[in-house]
Amino acid sequence: MKILVVGASGTIGKAITKILEADNEIIRAGRNGADVSVDITSVDSIKTMYEKVGKLDAIVNAAGRAQFSPLAELTPELNEIGITSKLKGQINLVLLGQDYLNDNGSFTLTTGVMMDDPIRQGASAAMANGGVKAFVKSASIEMPRGIRINCVSPNAVQESWGRLRDYFQGFEAVPVSRVALAFKKSVYGAQTGQNYEVY
Amino acid sequence: MKILVVGASGTIGKAITKILEADNEIIRAGRNGADVSVDITSVDSIKTMYEKVGKLDAIVNAAGRAQFSPLAELTPELNEIGITSKLKGQINLVLLGQDYLNDNGSFTLTTGVMMDDPIRQGASAAMANGGVKAFVKSASIEMPRGIRINCVSPNAVQESWGRLRDYFQGFEAVPVSRVALAFKKSVYGAQTGQNYEVY
Ligand SMILES: NC(=O)c1ccc[n+]([C@@H]2O[C@H](COP(=O)([O-])OP(=O)(O)OC[C@H]3O[C@@H](n4cnc5c(N)ncnc54)[C@H](OP(=O)(O)O)[C@@H]3O)[C@@H](O)[C@H]2O)c1
Ligand SMILES: NC(=O)c1ccc[n+]([C@@H]2O[C@H](COP(=O)([O-])OP(=O)(O)OC[C@H]3O[C@@H](n4cnc5c(N)ncnc54)[C@H](OP(=O)(O)O)[C@@H]3O)[C@@H](O)[C@H]2O)c1
Repeated sequence: MKILVVGASGTIGKAITKILEADNEIIRAGRNGADVSVDITSVDSIKTMYEKVGKLDAIVNAAGRAQFSPLAELTPELNEIGITSKLKGQINLVLLGQDYLNDNGSFTLTTGVMMDDPIRQGASAAMANGGVKAFVKSASIEMPRGIRINCVSPNAVQESWGRLRDYFQGFEAVPVSRVALAFKKSVYGAQTGQNYEVY
Repeated sequence: MKILVVGASGTIGKAITKILEADNEIIRAGRNGADVSVDITSVDSIKTMYEKVGKLDAIVNAAGRAQFSPLAELTPELNEIGITSKLKGQINLVLLGQDYLNDNGSFTLTTGVMMDDPIRQGASAAMANGGVKAFVKSASIEMPRGIRINCVSPNAVQESWGRLRDYFQGFEAVPVSRVALAFKKSVYGAQTGQNYEVY
C-alpha cells in the first residue's frame, strides 16, 4: 500500500511509520516532512500536499495540537488553537483527501483519552477529540467506494511521560508501540467508524 | 432564579422558556432576542450581552446551527458553519460567561442525537455535537464555586418533523416538552458533566 503519514516525525508518527514501513510505501509528511511538507492548519497547504502525492491507499494522521489551559484562563482565542489544528486540521485532511484515496482505502485520525477520562486544563483538547470522534463515526456511513475511516484514542504514552506526567497523575501510560498497533488495525482491518481506545 | 435563555424564540427555546418561566425570571436572548440581542458566532456580541444582563443563576443555550451536506460535498468552508455556530458559539458562551454566574449556577448547552445515531449529511453537525459533549464533560471538573455544566441531546423533535423527516427516516421523534424537561433537570438538579439523551 502507498500510505501517507502526517506527523510522521512525532512520537506517535514514528511508531506508526515503523510498524507499517516493512510492507508498505510510506510518505512522511509534516511541516518539515521528510517526503512532503504540509501544515494541516492551512487548507491551501493540504490541497498542495495532495496534489503532490497523488493517489493513496491510506491516509494516517498523527499531527494536531490543542492548548492546555485552566478553564478559568481558557479564552476563545486559546481555544482556537485546538479548533484550527487538532479538530479542523484533521477533518480537512479527510474532506480534501476523499478523492485521493483509492477504492477500499482508509483514513485514520487521532483523538485521545482526555475526552473520556478528563483532566485539569484539558477541556479544549477534549473538545477537539470529541469532535473528531463524532465526525469519524458519522462520516463513516457516507464514505464511497469502500473507503473506511477510524480514529485511535491513545492514553498518555510512556515515551511522552516526561512532558505529560504532571497533567496525567495516576494514569497508566501505554507504550507507543501499542498505539501503533491500533493504527495498523485500522489500516489493515475492515472496520469503519471506530474510535480505537488504547487505554 | 435569573435565567438567560439564548435561542428563546426557537422551537426548543420556547419550550424551555415555558417550563421555566412560572418560577423564574427569564431573559430571552437571540439575534432578535425579546430581552437582549446576541449573535453567538461573535465573541464581541457575547461579551456585550453579558455586560448588559449582569449576574445570572443559569445560562441555557438552545441556539446553534450546522450545515447539512452530503460528505462528498462538505467543504472546509461549509463545515465552518457548524464550527462557528454550534461548536464555538456554545463554548464561547461558557468561556465568556463563567464570571457572570452566581455561586452554584449552571450552564446547559445543546447537542443532538446525530452524534450517536448518525444520518446521511450529518457529519458536520455530529462533529459539533461531539465537541460540545466532550467539552462539557471535561469542563465540569474545573468549574469553580459549585457551578455545574451539562448538555441536552435531543432526538429530532415532533414540532420540527416537517423540516427534518427526510433526514431522520425511521427515527421516533420526541415531543419538545420532553426535551424541555431535560433542560429543567439540568438547571434544578445537582448533576454536572452530563449529556442528557432525550431519545
Ligand atoms: N504523546 C502522547 O502521549 C499522546 C497521547 C494522546 C494523544 N496524543 C495525540 O497524538 C497526536 C500526536 O502526538 P505526538 O506526541 O506524537 O506529537 P509530537 O511528538 O509533538 O509530533 C507531532 C508531529 O506532527 C507534526 N506537526 C505538528 N504540527 C503540524 C501541523 N500544523 N501540520 C502538519 N504537521 C504537524 C510534527 O512535525 P513538524 O514539526 O515537522 O510539523 C510531528 O511530526 C496529537 O494529536 C496528540 O494530541 C498524544
Ligand atoms: N429541532 C430539533 O428537532 C432538534 C433536534 C436535535 C437538536 N436540535 C438542536 O437544538 C438547537 C435549537 O434547535 P431549534 O430547532 O429549536 O432551532 P430554531 O427553531 O431554528 O431556533 C433557533 C433559535 O436560536 C436563535 N439563534 C439562531 N442563530 C443564532 C445566533 N447566531 N446567535 C444567537 N441566537 C441565534 C434564534 O433566534 P434569532 O433568529 O432571533 O437569532 C432562535 O431563537 C439547535 O442547536 C439544533 O441543532 C434541534
